[in-house]
Amino acid sequence: MHIVITGGAGFLGVRLARALLEKNSLSLAGAPAEAITTLSLVDRAEPPADLLADPRVKAVVGDLNALLAASPARVVPADAQLVVHLAAAVSGECEADFDLGMHSNLDATRALLETCRALKTKPTVVFASSLAVFGHSEEQPLPSTIEDNTLPTPLTSYGIQKFIGEQLTADFGRKGFIRGRSARLMTVSVRPGKPNGAASSFFSGMIREPLAGVRGACPVGPETPVALSSPGLTVRGLIRAAEATDAEWGPRTAVNLPALSTTVGEMAAALERVAGKSVAALIDWTPEANIRKIVATWPGRIDAQRARGLGLLPEADFDGVIRDYIRENPHAVATAPQT
Amino acid sequence: MHIVITGGAGFLGVRLARALLEKNSLSLAGAPAEAITTLSLVDRAEPPADLLADPRVKAVVGDLNALLAASPARVVPADAQLVVHLAAAVSGECEADFDLGMHSNLDATRALLETCRALKTKPTVVFASSLAVFGHSEEQPLPSTIEDNTLPTPLTSYGIQKFIGEQLTADFGRKGFIRGRSARLMTVSVRPGKPNGAASSFFSGMIREPLAGVRGACPVGPETPVALSSPGLTVRGLIRAAEATDAEWGPRTAVNLPALSTTVGEMAAALERVAGKSVAALIDWTPEANIRKIVATWPGRIDAQRARGLGLLPEADFDGVIRDYIRENPHAVATAPQT
Repeated sequence: MHIVITGGAGFLGVRLARALLEKNSLSLAGAPAEAITTLSLVDRAEPPADLLADPRVKAVVGDLNALLAASPARVVPADAQLVVHLAAAVSGECEADFDLGMHSNLDATRALLETCRALKTKPTVVFASSLAVFGHSEEQPLPSTIEDNTLPTPLTSYGIQKFIGEQLTADFGRKGFIRGRSARLMTVSVRPGKPNGAASSFFSGMIREPLAGVRGACPVGPETPVALSSPGLTVRGLIRAAEATDAEWGPRTAVNLPALSTTVGEMAAALERVAGKSVAALIDWTPEANIRKIVATWPGRIDAQRARGLGLLPEADFDGVIRDYIRENPHAVATAPQT
Repeated sequence: MHIVITGGAGFLGVRLARALLEKNSLSLAGAPAEAITTLSLVDRAEPPADLLADPRVKAVVGDLNALLAASPARVVPADAQLVVHLAAAVSGECEADFDLGMHSNLDATRALLETCRALKTKPTVVFASSLAVFGHSEEQPLPSTIEDNTLPTPLTSYGIQKFIGEQLTADFGRKGFIRGRSARLMTVSVRPGKPNGAASSFFSGMIREPLAGVRGACPVGPETPVALSSPGLTVRGLIRAAEATDAEWGPRTAVNLPALSTTVGEMAAALERVAGKSVAALIDWTPEANIRKIVATWPGRIDAQRARGLGLLPEADFDGVIRDYIRENPHAVATAPQT
């Protein structure tokens, strides 16, 4: 089986690639499991060395739109059975540069779907959508709990573009061009590495930086609700989306992946429980109006009913998420945790 | 005030143009009323003679995508304050030719919005969306009554493209590029003239043809529910969308225009009451699986709450709609009605 991951050198792409390589075979939409023979990682950047060293991995480096225009078969080869589309400009970028967002998110998604359609083999496409399709405002308040059939009212260009991607994925699926699966990712925390341009970047930075012994900014108040998921559960959700039969998956609308509903203050308290007072004291509670304004439009509570039906459950608590991060990223942790 | 109507030589465009010319002035989004000085009718076809004879009317004839690419200022001149975007490939066409629908509906809408954005004057754009964004299926049944915040689940490419147009209109509005208004049109009946490629075409033909003394086909059963609106009320809804203040209009999501919830059998009964048994007997009840399949996915009952708040109410009954048609189209009626 040949699998393509766009954004395959990004944080989630790399984790997904490692998980698939370790899994070694995949049962696509209920079909008998097949060995994973090739994993194409399409990204602007090279994937890390461990992935490049695997003979199954093929790096396709370049801008997704440019690659699709110049040589679509390099991105989605004729034998591709599964495409996981993670590549996207992030929310902060899309808000700052409208045209960039439309190009990177809307145009690239459409071109990718057209490339898959042209194969005439009906490949499975897992489209990574986002919690950001839900926007809360005074004039159109979200219900206190988001369900799978809650009307998305995106209040960022990123959210609009993701929601349009869901519609395209649904219709390309309905027409039989692809087997489409839209899965809405929650806020992923704790992400290792460096901050990115996403308005949600601090949800990881406020934990990651203190653990590394440096100050980490939290631009919103401790009462701020957040619906989050660990990197591991997020990758599990993407794989489940590919594996689910059509009947298990259900309607063509997007599935909300499961989320732990907590608050930023609870996240800080978990950090203190896991790593100690001195580490938690490294959080800088410095309000930033721009970030607060965006984050205030995001929902904090998700009832992910369809995900539950697929066997996908949220994390039990954030303490375990922090412990997993420490175990998986020993070199990024300055002090031994107190537990 | 310069007003642009795309699809301005189509059935609704012509009616809207006549209504605006008769109105003579318009109060845009609550601003003081201004005289309508120019009305650009953009369409593949020439508008009818009565409109061409009005010195305020300017016909811009051509394909919308081609016109926007070649000379955007001909479509949306610098002084355009209101653009009503009616031009679209209809549902049947979009289902038969996916690429045509994407080009005529998605690409043209996006190009039109970009042209409006480039003006930097924040013109008002009324986007004509459709009831077709709602699709009923066994795996994802619609609620018995559609409200403004019901999740659209389009089951046609036309519905998907209209729903994407709503998203683009919302985000271009949120970014301050335009003042955006998406209004979902109901099934319009009775349309004069000839059948078109819309799957809903028979909702007019089954009344119009018998009134003209010829047989009219009804491809669905009499129990089929339908949410319909007269041409007059539909045009009134489009004008109200342009006139409403931001506060009156409310959220950036689409407003369902009001609909009379009835059935095809009730429509036939109304025809018999208004025009007599012999006329109603000209309806051919000849089931067509393709049409039935599409129509079965459309909702029959709408609770148009936001429209009510704007003072827009549905027709009281279909009998009045037929009488209006007879009065407005005397040359298309073969026999004098019995009332």
